[in-house]
Amino acid sequence: MEGDDHLANERNKAEFNVDDMKIVWAGSRHAFEVSNRMSRLVASDPVFEKSNRAVMTRKELFKNTLRKSVHAWKLINELPLSDDESLMLRHFMDQPGFLDLHWRMFVPAIKGQGTEEQKQKWLPLANKMQIIGCYAQTELGHGSNVQGLETTATFDPQTDQFILHSPTQTSSKWWPGGLGKVSTHAVIYARLITDGKDHGVHGFIVQLRNMDDHSPLPGITIGDIGVKFGNGAYNSMDNGFLMFDKFCIPRDQMLMRLSKVTREGKYVPSDVPRQLMYGTMVSVRQTIVSNASIAMARAVCIATRYSAVRRQFGSQNGGIETQVIDYKTQQNRLFPLLASAYAFRFVGEWLKWLYTDVTQRLEASDFATLPEAHACTAGLKSMTTSATSDGIEECRKLCGGHGYLWCSGLPELFAVYVPACTYEGDNVVLQLQVARFLMKTVSQLGSGKAPAGTTAYMGRAKHLLQCRSSIRKAEDWLNPAMVLETFEARALRMAVSCANNLSKFENQEQGFSELLADLVEAAIAHCQLIVVSKFIVKLEGEIKGKGVKNQLKNLCYIYALHLIHKHLGDFLSTNSITSEQASLANHQLRSLYTQVRPNAVALVDAFDYTDHYLGSVLGRYDGNVYPKLFEEALKDPLNDTVVPDGYHEYIRPLIKQHLRSARL
Amino acid sequence: MEGDDHLANERNKAEFNVDDMKIVWAGSRHAFEVSNRMSRLVASDPVFEKSNRAVMTRKELFKNTLRKSVHAWKLINELPLSDDESLMLRHFMDQPGFLDLHWRMFVPAIKGQGTEEQKQKWLPLANKMQIIGCYAQTELGHGSNVQGLETTATFDPQTDQFILHSPTQTSSKWWPGGLGKVSTHAVIYARLITDGKDHGVHGFIVQLRNMDDHSPLPGITIGDIGVKFGNGAYNSMDNGFLMFDKFCIPRDQMLMRLSKVTREGKYVPSDVPRQLMYGTMVSVRQTIVSNASIAMARAVCIATRYSAVRRQFGSQNGGIETQVIDYKTQQNRLFPLLASAYAFRFVGEWLKWLYTDVTQRLEASDFATLPEAHACTAGLKSMTTSATSDGIEECRKLCGGHGYLWCSGLPELFAVYVPACTYEGDNVVLQLQVARFLMKTVSQLGSGKAPAGTTAYMGRAKHLLQCRSSIRKAEDWLNPAMVLETFEARALRMAVSCANNLSKFENQEQGFSELLADLVEAAIAHCQLIVVSKFIVKLEGEIKGKGVKNQLKNLCYIYALHLIHKHLGDFLSTNSITSEQASLANHQLRSLYTQVRPNAVALVDAFDYTDHYLGSVLGRYDGNVYPKLFEEALKDPLNDTVVPDGYHEYIRPLIKQHLRSARL
Repeated sequence: MEGDDHLANERNKAEFNVDDMKIVWAGSRHAFEVSNRMSRLVASDPVFEKSNRAVMTRKELFKNTLRKSVHAWKLINELPLSDDESLMLRHFMDQPGFLDLHWRMFVPAIKGQGTEEQKQKWLPLANKMQIIGCYAQTELGHGSNVQGLETTATFDPQTDQFILHSPTQTSSKWWPGGLGKVSTHAVIYARLITDGKDHGVHGFIVQLRNMDDHSPLPGITIGDIGVKFGNGAYNSMDNGFLMFDKFCIPRDQMLMRLSKVTREGKYVPSDVPRQLMYGTMVSVRQTIVSNASIAMARAVCIATRYSAVRRQFGSQNGGIETQVIDYKTQQNRLFPLLASAYAFRFVGEWLKWLYTDVTQRLEASDFATLPEAHACTAGLKSMTTSATSDGIEECRKLCGGHGYLWCSGLPELFAVYVPACTYEGDNVVLQLQVARFLMKTVSQLGSGKAPAGTTAYMGRAKHLLQCRSSIRKAEDWLNPAMVLETFEARALRMAVSCANNLSKFENQEQGFSELLADLVEAAIAHCQLIVVSKFIVKLEGEIKGKGVKNQLKNLCYIYALHLIHKHLGDFLSTNSITSEQASLANHQLRSLYTQVRPNAVALVDAFDYTDHYLGSVLGRYDGNVYPKLFEEALKDPLNDTVVPDGYHEYIRPLIKQHLRSARL
Repeated sequence: MEGDDHLANERNKAEFNVDDMKIVWAGSRHAFEVSNRMSRLVASDPVFEKSNRAVMTRKELFKNTLRKSVHAWKLINELPLSDDESLMLRHFMDQPGFLDLHWRMFVPAIKGQGTEEQKQKWLPLANKMQIIGCYAQTELGHGSNVQGLETTATFDPQTDQFILHSPTQTSSKWWPGGLGKVSTHAVIYARLITDGKDHGVHGFIVQLRNMDDHSPLPGITIGDIGVKFGNGAYNSMDNGFLMFDKFCIPRDQMLMRLSKVTREGKYVPSDVPRQLMYGTMVSVRQTIVSNASIAMARAVCIATRYSAVRRQFGSQNGGIETQVIDYKTQQNRLFPLLASAYAFRFVGEWLKWLYTDVTQRLEASDFATLPEAHACTAGLKSMTTSATSDGIEECRKLCGGHGYLWCSGLPELFAVYVPACTYEGDNVVLQLQVARFLMKTVSQLGSGKAPAGTTAYMGRAKHLLQCRSSIRKAEDWLNPAMVLETFEARALRMAVSCANNLSKFENQEQGFSELLADLVEAAIAHCQLIVVSKFIVKLEGEIKGKGVKNQLKNLCYIYALHLIHKHLGDFLSTNSITSEQASLANHQLRSLYTQVRPNAVALVDAFDYTDHYLGSVLGRYDGNVYPKLFEEALKDPLNDTVVPDGYHEYIRPLIKQHLRSARL
């Protein structure tokens, strides 16, 4: 029956106050209210309808994205919405498009790298969207290695201009979102050359298209790079390519906050510390970690609700079957992902604090904590996005065959999400940065320089290298100090073991290259420790609401103990725990699953996602899955006619055995 | 330059004869020749063009599939092609469609479950494709649990007919390929009811559509279930739904080989042993394992070639960068997948032998080996398809950002492949079947009944439970007996540990349910042992060709040692090896990577895939990647015009600040 809540029974089982949990998830009452209001605003506006995306052609999808984006901008101005609200509105629109790049990359690049003069000139135009900008760094042959970019910007003292040029095919800009069809401007990264000298990669503000008719300016070749992973998904975005043929821009369009080129062509670094740039990186990666929790939560919400709806086996005589969420194999795969969503949420929250802290220090010219903050955000970006990509696909599998339907929402979520493993730093490359930092920290142990922040535990190396876990019974695995020390011992021992192996090589770089795979594992162990420790810190603070803290505690230990099980080889080979302790952890884990089970649906309700945002027939709030699957199926264009197009040309000649005469 | 082989340098490094390896990969010279000829026939025929699939609408894609299928059938008849050749032709067509279900499911179901009379009536029609059939088992609410199907077939003695009926919405047939729009007939599974008694699920041959105008027959509601994962991919297939409203079929359309219903409505089981049905299952799953190796090989071929083409980092002064295949992190992720492709190939080959063996025994009414064969094929289906799904996605990530482009071939390969984890038995459900079999085998140890086939090692339980690995140096990890014993000890100890834990429960079923997750891990350990052991057996046989055996040896040990690293927790916690031995294994693994490195491109050339079949710009044989990426991009419909559709309605009003007056 329409309107019935098929999951009411599940919701009644919950042992905590869901409304209070919603506040905890959102971070504050204010954040909850903004998010709640904006998600409902989007859901109720027919322009933002998205269930039709899978059957649109690429052109229709692109045009539909323009329509939504411009409609959103209109709402933002007319209602009007605050910055917070606009951000959430765009988020719940849930369709990648040029607005993302304009606001998240183009504007911040000018703010961060432009001089006061440049900001005064360009920001008002960008803020009113009189110009639309994107961020063009990646080239066809150069992604992770920014220093390898080939595009050149050569200063010409005669005309007082920079000549932008793409010397090879691999130097074409390739991938920037919003570039292919929409942007009028871009921040372009190119090698600065003055008087024959290469000063490395710098940013330039470049107009790409004629403001009157949108045609590319002479000297610029530009287009879309083609279809990407998935149906719908990122195909709404005009990721583009761009080649310059000796294209000239005025000298004052080089972003000159950090260094400038004078009228005479002299290259002059400013006295603004380079480290300031890292602040932006910390901010961008913090957002990515937050988004990981959001995407993971979305997949988990769908899989949890559908696991409560779906029944398989367990009945002999045609009676009612068992809900699949009651199977331990399902819980063993699903609940760690549920716990991860919460874990990533809280570490993301902590990263927000870290960003504020770093910014304040930078303003006071205190750069001491920057390398640690940089390594920590790089590692967390890598670890959380990899876990989330895998988690989304796991949730799809947890939905059985129907997870493969586009209308389950999971295929598109996966296709939209996976680029997060590559953009803003390839996940493996980032872990190697973390590993380098860890190796440096290990090498400085005992030098009197105490490791700080997330590496503070390394200061207790002596203890952590020799301590033995005192876990004796399953319940000990709920002791925060014991759990923490287990993760610290494992992380430290892996790092120290890498450092020892490195020291056996005469050439450090060769050793590093030989041991890359081990180094990545040590970095991941360090990052997992951070997430576990920040979850524990969260539990130590005040958490309001009936039963809320208790639920979070269960999730925290599920998160930690499932990691021990998953990386058991690490823990055992470093002697951080014994096999018997591992088996107690498993025992405790199973008991935690049992405790989470009655709360599972309520724990995903706490994400406060609308059915519009979830975009999943399987994850519907009311659990009314099967009739809605039919409704969705009937919308497919193949169902427009009973007898399909192609019957007379192909099927009929085949079965009537008239193939010889048929023209195919 | 067009025509140049950008990978020639890589190919020159190979230390073995690629042509000989092609024969080993194909299984025989004959198999190689058929496959080679058919793949080139498809690649050279413009009807089989597939690079345009991503920009087709669902309707166009469906119609294009009809065209290809009917063209293939025409070729098969006109050339004519042998059965082997037809199979390969359809395989290289590489587009899911109704032919797959007709030949792989509909025809075999009649062959296996029909009486002689029924076969004489239906097979000639099906073999000439005068009728097109599909296989309709799965229902909207019932997948894995076949015994839970709801569709009924009630015998009506008055009319001598079965009345097919769908009593609920969840009883609708849902998913069968070819059902939605194409099939004229189906084998339908339904609960047989005679005289009020339910005899469980049986198969029926049912005509669905009018043979003159293709309209569904009265009492049948039928359609397509809508868009599935990915762009292109399985959307070429008309997976369908079907509901019966008291639809009547003659009594002789029940498949009556195993049991029949008489004119009087009496249910009579035949004397044909039920076990015969399992033979078919073994055959189908053997094919799935072979296909796993093919899909894994395809992804690995793309990732390997592109890893040799792509360069990142490693140069300071704008000089040539390092090929990414030279990085240990890349090798550490890629080479185990390369090794898996070969490992799955050989275990698939062995399964073919097993099927022949089982068939011969069944014909002689020897059912003794059936449970073991059944468990082994179920487990290998599960293990290889899960590893392959993950492996394809890993290969996509190994290609960096460009792997996300549809034209890399990997997104579509993933989307097409992943259903293999669900169909023909959900992978987790299958491992539980294996686990049940293992528990039974353990419980019978010492009873005098010696475990046979792939469980023979369990007969040495006493030794395996107490033995200590004698690995002392890295090279010992190349000793087949030592490696094998390590895997045997781990598998046996995990199974015995599960059995011990199970015995602590009063209620066996409750214990089984509580320990599901551990049982799955024990089953996987058993399956990995099978794959390793069959690879080792392969190496013990004759293998012709310069250097070929040596390469396969490297791959065999990479396969085994990477599993030890990946599942280190299993090996350590069961004391099958020590941490020191594990670290020697890692050392040996790195050395094997170095040995495989110069042979990597040649090892994927040995798959003999055409560029048409690979369907990947990144995996092109000639390595000429970058110019071809541009060519592909330019084909996107968004590039039809320089100024995109939507500019005047949306972009212009936005930047000209005329939004207020714009109608959105």
